[in-house]
Amino acid sequence: MMKAAFYEGQQKISVGACEPVAPGPGDVQVKIAFCGICGTDLHLFHGKMDHRMHLPQVFGHEVAGTVSAVGSNVSGYAIGAPVTVRPLEPCLQCPACLDGNSHICQRLKFIGIDKPGGMQALWTVPSYTLHRLPSSLSLRDASLVEPLAVACHDVRRGRVQSGEYVVVQGGGPIGILIALVAREAGAKVVLSEINPFRLKLVRELGFDAINPAEQDIVAYVNEQTGTRGADVVFEVSGSAAGAQSMTKLAKVRGRIVVVAVFGEAPKVDLFQCFWRELELIGARVYEPEDFDQAIALAAAPGKLPFQRLITDVCKMEELESALHRLESGGDVMKVLIACSEE
Amino acid sequence: MMKAAFYEGQQKISVGACEPVAPGPGDVQVKIAFCGICGTDLHLFHGKMDHRMHLPQVFGHEVAGTVSAVGSNVSGYAIGAPVTVRPLEPCLQCPACLDGNSHICQRLKFIGIDKPGGMQALWTVPSYTLHRLPSSLSLRDASLVEPLAVACHDVRRGRVQSGEYVVVQGGGPIGILIALVAREAGAKVVLSEINPFRLKLVRELGFDAINPAEQDIVAYVNEQTGTRGADVVFEVSGSAAGAQSMTKLAKVRGRIVVVAVFGEAPKVDLFQCFWRELELIGARVYEPEDFDQAIALAAAPGKLPFQRLITDVCKMEELESALHRLESGGDVMKVLIACSEE
Repeated sequence: MMKAAFYEGQQKISVGACEPVAPGPGDVQVKIAFCGICGTDLHLFHGKMDHRMHLPQVFGHEVAGTVSAVGSNVSGYAIGAPVTVRPLEPCLQCPACLDGNSHICQRLKFIGIDKPGGMQALWTVPSYTLHRLPSSLSLRDASLVEPLAVACHDVRRGRVQSGEYVVVQGGGPIGILIALVAREAGAKVVLSEINPFRLKLVRELGFDAINPAEQDIVAYVNEQTGTRGADVVFEVSGSAAGAQSMTKLAKVRGRIVVVAVFGEAPKVDLFQCFWRELELIGARVYEPEDFDQAIALAAAPGKLPFQRLITDVCKMEELESALHRLESGGDVMKVLIACSEE
Repeated sequence: MMKAAFYEGQQKISVGACEPVAPGPGDVQVKIAFCGICGTDLHLFHGKMDHRMHLPQVFGHEVAGTVSAVGSNVSGYAIGAPVTVRPLEPCLQCPACLDGNSHICQRLKFIGIDKPGGMQALWTVPSYTLHRLPSSLSLRDASLVEPLAVACHDVRRGRVQSGEYVVVQGGGPIGILIALVAREAGAKVVLSEINPFRLKLVRELGFDAINPAEQDIVAYVNEQTGTRGADVVFEVSGSAAGAQSMTKLAKVRGRIVVVAVFGEAPKVDLFQCFWRELELIGARVYEPEDFDQAIALAAAPGKLPFQRLITDVCKMEELESALHRLESGGDVMKVLIACSEE
């Protein structure tokens, strides 16, 4: 028996004992050390994805752990080896998969939503979803590899070059990770955020940061760039205001990367897209190379301030209250759940 | 003295004699054979660009003619040589120009709006705006080189490859020219249009065409492509409906080229942009290489059905009525004004 956190529906979590799933052919069972809480989990907690789940269900997908058991037809994973999970299960048959875009397969199963997730002591997943972790990387830090891979993917989709001027709209975990990856790529980054706690943290991390409710960010960026505008804008806020400012911030032939999940279609100034030949690029999840880059970045000593981003490590029993704390926009950034405590 | 058509403001055109402008240093005077009427001219006729003009003013910019006089500091243009005009005057000093995007200079002067245009017998323009025409190309057909260069630019921005499935939303002159250029590039093209006259013409030109008011174009394209979706969508309709369908039509990682001039910001499904990692690309006017490609295409015998696209050739005195006919959505496609009739 082991412990798992179940989403029961209607903003309820229960924690209880359950039988671990034995790894079938091609599977690996991972002893989960930490599982981070993602914005998607919050969305899911609010019942927005109940139609994709079988309640009660374990969710969570930002994990780090060690191999605890290996199914048949799996080689190369020693018991105890540190790993993280790229939680995507593509069909490999649809046009998107056949075109080489299996990460956004037309029938993609996201493990942790469409299938049970990582908020449990022992999680069994297909071996092809695993990435090995260097032993120098703590499992605590490694639980940020998944969101960091999102950021690596976003920055790669935006083709950020050294010396470029980048605006990141939205200073939650993904926005900050994008800012960090873009800075590592040599970009000058300004971040836009309205939450004071996040703004303060972003500034402490050495970023130029603007509260767009208090300061005209378009005027600021134009002044900073000598009227050129931003080379790349990352829209991570998911707000109507963000959708409006993104086309104003980008330079002629600038790139706008749409990272946020927009609940409803906002107005977008297509005239500006035309007039300045902007390029608007959607970016979703990640490809294996993004995990490779994320792991390398995470393991490079002192590169990324993970200690500052992880504001809490909670017990499984605290998951429900942590979700409420996150949604209230409190003084939290990334919250981890310790999944293998005895 | 020569004849010119002047826009007087408030949907009024006057035709009268005027003194030709002698070519200054770096200028060339062109005897205009034909000048096409563009959608922009219609917009301008309705007073939407009065703030950029000095009324009364000659407009028009889709021309073909022959060199009639050459200013100092100009070489390589013999009197009588057939030419067309790329009507862009960039500042060469703004960030966009310095970045190599002078065609969409931040202070671009569009000759024919910000400066006098081509609806006159003798038009003086900077020599750098000229493109030589092969003698095999009639001046009548050559007056379509400018809109054809727009289409070449759009197709190039969309990176259309041979074998790709392309949807063009909007079957006016630019939409049809995009369809023709994409077909020349080896694409399979379906065009969407609601005007029956245009639909009929498009079908007679051998294109698959859909009236989206009568048939579900998204379902049709999904069926035609085995659920893959369109590789490239050209949004030329400028309608809210077009802005809505474009994100539904494009495949995973598909490209959407925004060609239309949207008067107001429509709702755009940014969730689909994210979900399918769509790429939305603005495309405006043209670069010199687009004129080169357009001239080569126009001069290739039998390649493009210009005779079908030019539905009328009118006298200058008929310009005002031709503008009214165009705006009423009548049975017209491209209308030319003969500018050098005696």
